Amino acid sequence: MSENPLHKIMNPASISIAGASNNFRKMGTIQLLNLIKSGFTGDIMPVHPKEEQVLGKKAYASIPKLPYAPDLAILVVPTALVPEMLEDFGRIGTRSAVVITAGFKETGADGRVLEKQIIDIASRYGIRFLGPNCLGIVNTSLPLNITVSPLLSSGGHFSLASQSGTYIAQTLNYLYRNGISLNKAISVGNEANIDIVDCLEYLGDDEGTKAIGLYLEGIRDAGRFLETARRISAKKPIIAQYVGGNEAGARSGSSHTGAMAGPDFIYDGLFAQAGIIRVDTIEEVYKIGWALAMSPPLKGRRIAVLTNSGGPGSGIASTCHAQGLEVPEFSPEIQDRVCQYLPGLASARNPVDLTFHIGMETLTEKIPEILFQAEDLDGVIIHGIMDTGFVDLLYDSIKEFIDVSREDFLKVSEANLDKLVNMPSKYGKPLLISSFFGREDHCIRVFHDHAIPTFDSPEKTAKAMACLYKHLLIRRKVRDVPARNAGRTIPAEALDIVAGRKEPVIDEYTAKRILKLYGIPTTREIVAQTSEQAAAGAREIGYPVAVKACASFIAHKTEQNLVFLNVEDEAGLRKACDAILSAQPEAGILVAEMLRGKREFMAGISTHPGFPPCVMFGLGGIYAEALKDFTIRLAPLSRSDAMEMIDSIDARALVGPYRNMEEVDRQALADILIGLGEIALDLPAVKEIDLNPIIIVDGSPKVADALMVVTDR
Amino acid sequence: MSENPLHKIMNPASISIAGASNNFRKMGTIQLLNLIKSGFTGDIMPVHPKEEQVLGKKAYASIPKLPYAPDLAILVVPTALVPEMLEDFGRIGTRSAVVITAGFKETGADGRVLEKQIIDIASRYGIRFLGPNCLGIVNTSLPLNITVSPLLSSGGHFSLASQSGTYIAQTLNYLYRNGISLNKAISVGNEANIDIVDCLEYLGDDEGTKAIGLYLEGIRDAGRFLETARRISAKKPIIAQYVGGNEAGARSGSSHTGAMAGPDFIYDGLFAQAGIIRVDTIEEVYKIGWALAMSPPLKGRRIAVLTNSGGPGSGIASTCHAQGLEVPEFSPEIQDRVCQYLPGLASARNPVDLTFHIGMETLTEKIPEILFQAEDLDGVIIHGIMDTGFVDLLYDSIKEFIDVSREDFLKVSEANLDKLVNMPSKYGKPLLISSFFGREDHCIRVFHDHAIPTFDSPEKTAKAMACLYKHLLIRRKVRDVPARNAGRTIPAEALDIVAGRKEPVIDEYTAKRILKLYGIPTTREIVAQTSEQAAAGAREIGYPVAVKACASFIAHKTEQNLVFLNVEDEAGLRKACDAILSAQPEAGILVAEMLRGKREFMAGISTHPGFPPCVMFGLGGIYAEALKDFTIRLAPLSRSDAMEMIDSIDARALVGPYRNMEEVDRQALADILIGLGEIALDLPAVKEIDLNPIIIVDGSPKVADALMVVTDR
Repeated sequence: MSENPLHKIMNPASISIAGASNNFRKMGTIQLLNLIKSGFTGDIMPVHPKEEQVLGKKAYASIPKLPYAPDLAILVVPTALVPEMLEDFGRIGTRSAVVITAGFKETGADGRVLEKQIIDIASRYGIRFLGPNCLGIVNTSLPLNITVSPLLSSGGHFSLASQSGTYIAQTLNYLYRNGISLNKAISVGNEANIDIVDCLEYLGDDEGTKAIGLYLEGIRDAGRFLETARRISAKKPIIAQYVGGNEAGARSGSSHTGAMAGPDFIYDGLFAQAGIIRVDTIEEVYKIGWALAMSPPLKGRRIAVLTNSGGPGSGIASTCHAQGLEVPEFSPEIQDRVCQYLPGLASARNPVDLTFHIGMETLTEKIPEILFQAEDLDGVIIHGIMDTGFVDLLYDSIKEFIDVSREDFLKVSEANLDKLVNMPSKYGKPLLISSFFGREDHCIRVFHDHAIPTFDSPEKTAKAMACLYKHLLIRRKVRDVPARNAGRTIPAEALDIVAGRKEPVIDEYTAKRILKLYGIPTTREIVAQTSEQAAAGAREIGYPVAVKACASFIAHKTEQNLVFLNVEDEAGLRKACDAILSAQPEAGILVAEMLRGKREFMAGISTHPGFPPCVMFGLGGIYAEALKDFTIRLAPLSRSDAMEMIDSIDARALVGPYRNMEEVDRQALADILIGLGEIALDLPAVKEIDLNPIIIVDGSPKVADALMVVTDR
Repeated sequence: MSENPLHKIMNPASISIAGASNNFRKMGTIQLLNLIKSGFTGDIMPVHPKEEQVLGKKAYASIPKLPYAPDLAILVVPTALVPEMLEDFGRIGTRSAVVITAGFKETGADGRVLEKQIIDIASRYGIRFLGPNCLGIVNTSLPLNITVSPLLSSGGHFSLASQSGTYIAQTLNYLYRNGISLNKAISVGNEANIDIVDCLEYLGDDEGTKAIGLYLEGIRDAGRFLETARRISAKKPIIAQYVGGNEAGARSGSSHTGAMAGPDFIYDGLFAQAGIIRVDTIEEVYKIGWALAMSPPLKGRRIAVLTNSGGPGSGIASTCHAQGLEVPEFSPEIQDRVCQYLPGLASARNPVDLTFHIGMETLTEKIPEILFQAEDLDGVIIHGIMDTGFVDLLYDSIKEFIDVSREDFLKVSEANLDKLVNMPSKYGKPLLISSFFGREDHCIRVFHDHAIPTFDSPEKTAKAMACLYKHLLIRRKVRDVPARNAGRTIPAEALDIVAGRKEPVIDEYTAKRILKLYGIPTTREIVAQTSEQAAAGAREIGYPVAVKACASFIAHKTEQNLVFLNVEDEAGLRKACDAILSAQPEAGILVAEMLRGKREFMAGISTHPGFPPCVMFGLGGIYAEALKDFTIRLAPLSRSDAMEMIDSIDARALVGPYRNMEEVDRQALADILIGLGEIALDLPAVKEIDLNPIIIVDGSPKVADALMVVTDR
């Protein structure tokens, strides 16, 4: 495997930048300024046609005049200059670049031509580049920062790759105020050469990165993304926001990066399969990503909640519960130990509510130590620790009554958090802090200095803990590999059927033949051309039967009243045949056993540009359309993928023993889903499969109806 | 109607406080300090046994020694002293009190006795009081503040009533940093005398309050709450968080206020019926409540999004869409007008993305004016306005290159927002601001000064706009009043049936008789004692029929295999009768028409302490239990309540014309729900009704099975 191109881009020994000057109204100048001030220790060589010096650095009039080929070239020049300058860098031997300049693919036809041009130049010289239309990179380990915002902190292990430059370049102050420091950050822009999957792969292997955040507007190679992400997520948490899944989001996304979006439900399935924690806001990407990066991993879901006030305790407990965590009532032993520190009115059951009148030590040392020590508790959330933030508010009112300076007044109020901040590493359990104060409070600053995640609302703290638990479930997932056709030959008959197609629709009978070739259980059935043949078939199958029109030119049989279910006898059969043949004289007559079962599921295949075939599973029957209770995964499916699908639908209770009905054979259901994935990969001309209903007969799934659509050639 | 007791509590001309001293480690002292500093202009009379002066105010050794009866008494004394002091205040003529002191009902049996004692004292003297176990009140209109936090701002029109004191007393700094200023805030504590519904009613009538926030852990009189809230929400938005709906939340809640919680789904229904906007976090109560209070009301759902960066634009657009708003592509006219201000690369379609390189004026004046003027746009969200917050970050890096002081550097960078901040009132449309900067940025401070709501993440801004839209829908709701038994006599037969009950279960046949008395359509059916009677009945009804055991001592017929559906002929009928009579010789045999319909719903009644009977409607049949797709409303139902229920379930598409099936008669479905509410109110002994399935036959609903449970007497 070739080295990931980001190694060189993120760790250059020398950098040349074109587009920076001494004019601070230019973005390039600000970026050079931030690069210089970031503490980058390598050579920095500005290229400028006129200036001798740029921000105190010796400038070079042109790229050929550079003393040597820099490891990394940065272009913040007018669009028209980019091809020539990239070529110049290529000629002198530079092999890595960041093209900040916009005006390419995202602007239309002319821009696409220009983008193709720089792709070709890069390929000619073996240059790997980020962008165009990106906002730079950050690597606080080196250090290195070429964004428009100055670095404010370092030492964190959370890294970010983003399809929006803003989230790399313009939030460093926001992150600082929230105690978050990025390890690495990459703005990918138009992904003309290096794409978001390269970034994911790089961050996955990067030792400084302990959790990865992604902001996504569309992935172009979902198969590679899935493969990369599922490998990484087994050990390193990935948290992502995807915004392209509806028309408004996609319109916005495509306007600024030209990325390709896809429906929301595909990303739900892709993320689930890849072991990616999906969130809905960039705030959660940052704040929960930070908690995932800096906290000891959660080992179970039993959370202790400690507060000095009831409301936040209830908000935390309630949210924990809603998010799948437990806030168990403490054991009598723990309750006894906690009680010794409680005032008379407080509760020791979990949440522990110290009430307002209490010394900080109980909240910051005594009770936390008990909770961290408890073997039946996995994580701790505390709300209410504060000192100077609160006291400072009072000083102006209080000063006329006391003879103390503000500084001294604040100083004496400072809580000692030395023990608390060490508990997470000492006991190997996460500690998350909820507080309505920000960095004006000394406690918050101490938590930030020790990388203890803080949240400005009780419920967000609980949700972050729930994401630590989600990562535990992802780590524990069975990591079985899909068979992917290895040692399996594609059934020749299936290839023949698809090869011979003239119509887009494959008729039900033939579709079911393909299913059978892949071991998918279907109804016993025959196709007849006449009522007599149908009657003979029905006698063999046994009444009641289903009678349907069967032809590649009929896609919606039910809507055309060409389906007759529960046909009880030969009289009924003949009536059905007559109806079918009079409406569609060219059609065949499918006579199938009538499956008796109350539970109906559906499964299928759909295809989407940029994605491997999607296997679908959901609630079937007449309610399917109204409830849209389904889940997807990308083919090929491993067995655990298929089993997970079955457990992912809202109606999953139907699968287990349900009311008076026996448990569904889950393995058989999984076999259908795996088989569908194989069909889709073996027979790429098949674009759509719809098996609905799949009826559960005595616990076993059987396909009652099947529709297959192939490429219209 | 007697005057709401909070008028006097929130607007006293004189206050006496017991429990404040000159010791700043006492909570009472801090509260007195904040009262003095709040700008309260009335008399403040501390009661203290020893001190001559408390915080510079003349102190009185005891309550009888006060010069006159204060309008309001505040008690922050040890628990044991409360009864005696409350009595003393009553004796001198004080009729309003706030009991901050804790240690009552929330601590157990002794506390309950003590609480009963102060309730009795209050009742004897006609005292109305808040608490005990509360954290005070705020009224910035007066002004008045007796919480532990100093007031930092005023002039807002958002008011809050909370079952957690923290959210009144300890978040004023948080609110200030977010530009939020409370008009009034009330901590209700144990609600021994004044309860949260009193607060809601008071704030509903209060002119200074334009939106109401509620933090709830449990409501004791849901009927009164509903009546009050639905009256207010027609004109004034109410936004609420409820946390008692699960075991962990309820345990936490009950430990500190002793409130009574109820399942989450009841509150979902209650809030929907009352026109309350439900949110999941206290942050949303505050921030969205603020937007609801201070923004012009939204008149439609078409939102314009203007940004200087793609990511936030996509996040806003995507969230708007997910929350039911539209981010429509602009009309060609608007696009033309917007385009003249755009750089070549930017999109004018909506979201408008100016990209990073742009003067602030375009973002703060030119384009906003166009969007506010556009008649086909209802609200505006802007992300990316900033000035000093960003520039200040750069100053330390830039200062060696320029000869300007920090102050001047910041001053010249300040954007002029005069026009923008006036646009919402000028054009009568809401403007919400998304920014990653806080009050360190001059723009944010200007927005706060002009009560333009700001949010620290794009998605939260969109969600707030969606809540403005929710309030529009609530304002537009049909406000029809439930009939509530007026002019209707309770069917005597129904009263007789219930009065004569010995068993908790009413058998199916009798239950359906009650339903029929209320006009609820059921199956045609008879009850037989023998196979012969059953056969005669079946002949009259017509095959196929359903045959079931029918007795008040059998609750779960299906699970006991005493239900036979689709019985086709007399042979089948006799087999079914034999099976029933051999298993349950005492049972009757119900023979009912077999309803033919594919769509199955359910409806019912459930009862919960503190709540009027709950009417339930949902998806029925065998999937009901697995999908739990239902909604509830409290009886009595208005017609619009019932219609809203039908449209509230996930499977609502089933009701409309669906696949080949005709539209369900919604009025007939609503009649069933209204009838159930009437039964529950007429016959309070009926504790549970379960109609499942209700089968849709040719578009009309008919009850196929019914279970009624009465009080076990």
